[in-house]
Amino acid sequence: MEMTRSPLALPFPELPEIDGVTLRVAQAGYKDWRRADITFAELAEGTAAAGVFTKSACASYEIESGREQIKQGTARALIVNSGNANAFAGRKGREAVEQIMRQVADSLDCRPEQVFVSSTGVIGYPLPLDKARDGVAAVSQADPASWEEAATAIGTTDTYPKGATTSAMVGETKVTLSAIIKGSGMIAPDMATMLGYIFTDAAVDPSFLQELLANANAKTFSCITVDSDTSTSDTVLAFATGKAGNALIASFDDPGADAFAAALEDICRQLAHLVVRDGEGAQKFIEIAVVRAQSDDSARTIGLAIANSPLVKTAIAGEDANWGRVVMAVGKAGEPADRDRLSVGFGGYWAAKNGQAVEDFEEEPLAAHLKEQNIRIDVDLGIGQGSATVWTCDLTHGYISINADYRS
Amino acid sequence: MEMTRSPLALPFPELPEIDGVTLRVAQAGYKDWRRADITFAELAEGTAAAGVFTKSACASYEIESGREQIKQGTARALIVNSGNANAFAGRKGREAVEQIMRQVADSLDCRPEQVFVSSTGVIGYPLPLDKARDGVAAVSQADPASWEEAATAIGTTDTYPKGATTSAMVGETKVTLSAIIKGSGMIAPDMATMLGYIFTDAAVDPSFLQELLANANAKTFSCITVDSDTSTSDTVLAFATGKAGNALIASFDDPGADAFAAALEDICRQLAHLVVRDGEGAQKFIEIAVVRAQSDDSARTIGLAIANSPLVKTAIAGEDANWGRVVMAVGKAGEPADRDRLSVGFGGYWAAKNGQAVEDFEEEPLAAHLKEQNIRIDVDLGIGQGSATVWTCDLTHGYISINADYRS
Repeated sequence: MEMTRSPLALPFPELPEIDGVTLRVAQAGYKDWRRADITFAELAEGTAAAGVFTKSACASYEIESGREQIKQGTARALIVNSGNANAFAGRKGREAVEQIMRQVADSLDCRPEQVFVSSTGVIGYPLPLDKARDGVAAVSQADPASWEEAATAIGTTDTYPKGATTSAMVGETKVTLSAIIKGSGMIAPDMATMLGYIFTDAAVDPSFLQELLANANAKTFSCITVDSDTSTSDTVLAFATGKAGNALIASFDDPGADAFAAALEDICRQLAHLVVRDGEGAQKFIEIAVVRAQSDDSARTIGLAIANSPLVKTAIAGEDANWGRVVMAVGKAGEPADRDRLSVGFGGYWAAKNGQAVEDFEEEPLAAHLKEQNIRIDVDLGIGQGSATVWTCDLTHGYISINADYRS
Repeated sequence: MEMTRSPLALPFPELPEIDGVTLRVAQAGYKDWRRADITFAELAEGTAAAGVFTKSACASYEIESGREQIKQGTARALIVNSGNANAFAGRKGREAVEQIMRQVADSLDCRPEQVFVSSTGVIGYPLPLDKARDGVAAVSQADPASWEEAATAIGTTDTYPKGATTSAMVGETKVTLSAIIKGSGMIAPDMATMLGYIFTDAAVDPSFLQELLANANAKTFSCITVDSDTSTSDTVLAFATGKAGNALIASFDDPGADAFAAALEDICRQLAHLVVRDGEGAQKFIEIAVVRAQSDDSARTIGLAIANSPLVKTAIAGEDANWGRVVMAVGKAGEPADRDRLSVGFGGYWAAKNGQAVEDFEEEPLAAHLKEQNIRIDVDLGIGQGSATVWTCDLTHGYISINADYRS
C-alpha cells in the first residue's frame, strides 16, 4: 500500500553523532523490496545498556531474550530486522535470534548477550536463517550510515523517519543524546511495532540507567496510544557509551544526575510524540491533561480511557467539542471520580464545570480551537492531587481504510 | 441524521402480552420531533423488581435512585424518557426524576420508590420539569400500546425496534417472558444508552430475581461491546408480576427455578445480541469463543480485549482472517496466556495452532467464512478450564461517519 506522509509529520532534525556509536544499514531482503531492511549499531566497549519491553503475554523471542540480556547491563551491538517480526514463530524464531547474536558476537569478539536484536514486520513467520546470515554479513561491512538512513531502515509502515536529540550538562561536561524510533500505531501484522533506540555519550551506571529509563517510560511511552492495541514486540533500548568522559552517574546523588534524567525524559517524550504523529489516518494531535485525580496512576488511567475512546477520537476528528463523550470516558475508566466535581474543557475553555454544562459556554473560541491541528483536552476531577498528561490522535476514515482494506 | 436500518437487523417478533403489565406511550416533546418519547409500563400490585446498572462513576440520578429503589424489591410503574438523558445535569436533573416518581405514585396510589425512571438522549441538560409533568399526565391517560410501539418509543438512534420473548415451565405452570430493549452502541451524547426491560408473569421472590438477573447479566450484557465505550445510564430492569399463579420461586431448590433462570438468561442473550446487531456502522455480527483460559473471568477479559480491538474489528470488516491481530489482542489483555499453547481459528478452521501458523492452512473455506455476515472467532489458550463467549460487531467507515460527522 502506498502510504502518504502523515499531515502531522515533523521534519527529520539534525542529530549530532554520538562518540562510540557507528550506524550501518544494508539490504537483507526480508521482503520482496528494494530498500535497506537490516540496521546495525556498533557500540564501543564498556557501553551500558537498559531497556523497557512490551508487557504482551505473547511477546516474541527477541523480547524474552532482551529482558534477560538487560540484566548483565552491557552492549556491543544492536541489530534491527525490518519486514518480519519473527513473532509467533515457534522454535525457529528463537534459532534465528540466537544465530544473529552468535554471528555478531564472533565478529566483534564479544559475548552473544551483548548483542541486542529487534525484529518488526509480519507476524507468524520465522525470520529466514539464510537471509539473516547474509544480511548480518552485509551490514557488518557496509559504510557508516546517517541517523536518517538508520531511522528509515528500521521503519515499516512509518510514513516518515523519526529522530530526536537533546543534551545535558553533567558537571562541566556536556553529554549528548540522539535517538531514532519507528512506529505508527500498533498494526502488528501489518508491521508497525514501536521500536525506539536512544544513544548517549554519557557515562551512566547500567542499573541507574535502567531506573531512569523506566521512570521516563512511565511518563512518556506509557502515556501514548493510537488505537489501544499493544504490539507483541514494543521495545525501547538506551545505550550509554561513556565517551563524553563525565564522572560516572550512578545515583541521584551524583552531580548532573537530575539534568541527565530530565534530558532522557525529554528525548523519550519527543520520540513518543513522533509515534503518535504517525498514527494511522491521524489528522490531529491530541494532548489530554488530567488533574486533581486521586493519584498520578489514577489520572493516567483516566487519561488513557479518554484517549482510547472511539467516541472521543471521532468527535475530535469531527472538530466537535463533545464534552459529554469525555464525561462518559471518565465514567468508564473505573477510577474514583465524582460527577458533581468533574470539569471538562478544550483548548483552555471550560465546557462543563462541577458536573454541569457551563451556561455561558464560549462557543466561538472553543470551536476555533477544535479546528486546529493540535488539540488540548483538560479534565479536572476535583478530588485529589494526582495528575498525568497523555497523548493520542484522532480516529478517522483513514484509520479504517488502512486497517480494513489491507489484506494479511 | 437519517439512520438506515442496520443490515444485521432482525424483524420484530410476536411478543405475548404479560398479565399484570399495561404499556402506554405518548409525546412529551423532549426534542423538537413528532414521535412518542415517553413510555409508561403500569405494573400490577405485588410485582417484584430487580435491576442491573452501569458501573460508570458519572452515572445519572436515575441510576443512583434505581440502585436504591431495587433494595425494596417491588415496582408499580416504569417511565422511560427518550431524547434527553438527564445525565450530568446537576441538582435540577434530580428534581425532575423526583417529580416524575411523585406524580406517578400519586396517580397509582403507591410509594414513589415503586416508580422506576429511565432517561436516554443528549447529556448535560436537565429534563424540563414542565414537559415531564405534561408528558406523564398524557401517557397515564393514553390507550394501551403494543410491544413494538413501546420498543419504538424508548428508542433514540436505534435503527430498528428490538423485542424478544421466551417461556419456561415452573412446575405445571407455563410462565412467559417478554422484553424490549434500546441501544445501538454507546453514543451517549448522541443518545444511545442501552435500556432493557424484561417483564414476566412468573411469581419470583425479589432478591432471588435480583440474583438471577445479575447472573444472566454477567453472561450476556456484560459480554457484548460495540466500541468499548460505556454509557452513563445503561440499565436492565426485570419485573415479575406473579400473575401466572406458579408457586413462588425463591431459591434454586424451588421447582422450576432452573428453568426460569435459563429462560431469563436466554432472553437477556437475545436482547444483548439485538443491541450488537444495531452497532453503528455494523456490517458483521462477531461471536468470539475463548476456551481453556485460566478462569471464566480471564476468558471473558481476553474475549473483550479481542472484541474491543480496533485492529481485529477492522480486519473483520475487511473480511481478512488476520489471526495475528487476534494474537496481539490476547497478548495485551493482561491475563495469563502462553504464546506456545495459543491457537486461533475462524469459522471452525484453525489458522494458528500452539504458537505457530498452521502450515496447511485451509485458505478457501476460511476466506468463504469471512465473507459471511455472522463471523465466529475461536481462541484456545490451552492452559486451564475457563471459558467465555462474547459478541461484537465490526468497525467500519459507517462508524466513523456516524460519530465524526455528527455535531453535538
